[in-house]
Amino acid sequence: MTELQSDARIRVAEIFGPTIQGEGVLIGLPTVFVRTGGCDYRCSWCDSMHAVDPEFRAEWTPMTTASIWSEVQRLSRRIPLMVSLSGGNPAIQPLAPLIARGKTEGYRFALETQGSIARDWFADLDNLILSPKPPSSGMETDWAGLDACLSAAGDGPQIALKIVIFDEADYRYARHVGGRYPHLPLYLQPGNHTPPPPEASDAPIDIDGVMNRMRWLIERAVHDQWFTPHILPQLHVLIWGNQRGV
Amino acid sequence: MTELQSDARIRVAEIFGPTIQGEGVLIGLPTVFVRTGGCDYRCSWCDSMHAVDPEFRAEWTPMTTASIWSEVQRLSRRIPLMVSLSGGNPAIQPLAPLIARGKTEGYRFALETQGSIARDWFADLDNLILSPKPPSSGMETDWAGLDACLSAAGDGPQIALKIVIFDEADYRYARHVGGRYPHLPLYLQPGNHTPPPPEASDAPIDIDGVMNRMRWLIERAVHDQWFTPHILPQLHVLIWGNQRGV
Repeated sequence: MTELQSDARIRVAEIFGPTIQGEGVLIGLPTVFVRTGGCDYRCSWCDSMHAVDPEFRAEWTPMTTASIWSEVQRLSRRIPLMVSLSGGNPAIQPLAPLIARGKTEGYRFALETQGSIARDWFADLDNLILSPKPPSSGMETDWAGLDACLSAAGDGPQIALKIVIFDEADYRYARHVGGRYPHLPLYLQPGNHTPPPPEASDAPIDIDGVMNRMRWLIERAVHDQWFTPHILPQLHVLIWGNQRGV
Repeated sequence: MTELQSDARIRVAEIFGPTIQGEGVLIGLPTVFVRTGGCDYRCSWCDSMHAVDPEFRAEWTPMTTASIWSEVQRLSRRIPLMVSLSGGNPAIQPLAPLIARGKTEGYRFALETQGSIARDWFADLDNLILSPKPPSSGMETDWAGLDACLSAAGDGPQIALKIVIFDEADYRYARHVGGRYPHLPLYLQPGNHTPPPPEASDAPIDIDGVMNRMRWLIERAVHDQWFTPHILPQLHVLIWGNQRGV
């Protein structure tokens, strides 16, 4: 048994791509997505519940680093690209060996997490996207946890913040986050109030509703002369709706 | 007469914002747009013909640096933000004093040009977006001109390339540009084949057609394992259609 095969297993909900990153600081960049299963949060509007709710645990495949890496290489045909580690909360998985393996072959790694769990291997990432959850999620932000993620990452990755916004309370939360971390790039993202149910990957989506929220968010920030955050929709949802795997 | 009032006049087609930048490397960022009038190109699918065709020259207001700056400050309520200098080709205008003036007050400046005319004041920009035109435009690329723009900019601004793509020939052109400037970030943008006629700012747009071209472009790049360019639509067109001033 090789060293890699003896790795702790990573629970994987899906691996797909290459397709473009639809959100945030890396928007538009061709990416392979490794979505891990399991999350310490239960956001009311989660759009990846198939990777969160233990009811779907049977669909999460325990994979070794070597088998995940093999699949990433197959999908990218061994041409280095950006790999996005998402979830669920990927911080609960033992991903350090995967990152180390991929980096030796020129791949880059981004990880997206709510920032509740810090790992020392965050420092090995190329991009760390911290997405603390606003009031509409029903979750409480663990500010000490978020600070710990920043400390763990250090000067290693480029760090960006992303806040999903559904309403005025979420907007005020985002302003608070912006004020707390003025030196980090901040991305605001209108929420999708018609997320796919976990058992159906192509449920209809209210694009008009999302775009209305996008326009409202732009007007809201401009009204406050808040000119520092980037305001971006989920591009993949505009392109493909709620379809999974694109 | 003050020094600023004695400046050479800048022909301005429109000043509007703040609204988000809809394209390229600064996508999503609140921005005030200064669109100048006049262009050395006549792209077949130009989406800003009201700022290009001399037939509309009477609508271009000759403005001093001071009067443009006053309008930018009014729109942004004196809170520094990104100012986008576009056109037409803004490189034909005497914009150096405007950039110098704004920078002293903390504003940032991006300029978007096809790269046919180099100016030494490109070095004073925060962002230079070079958008050489593909075959479908009907224009010929002046590679020496493009190289001269890069030389003029030097290490001053962040530089990015943006290519509008309508068809396979445009795609091949973009690949050539990517190969010619491998160290510059490259943005691919599906073309809008229903641009607004210059006299009507809210003409209908074929969003489905644009999104079909977006999907094709993503598939095309992924098929070639071309993973370096960002692929982004014109977000403002998705949000507001062909409406002007948003």
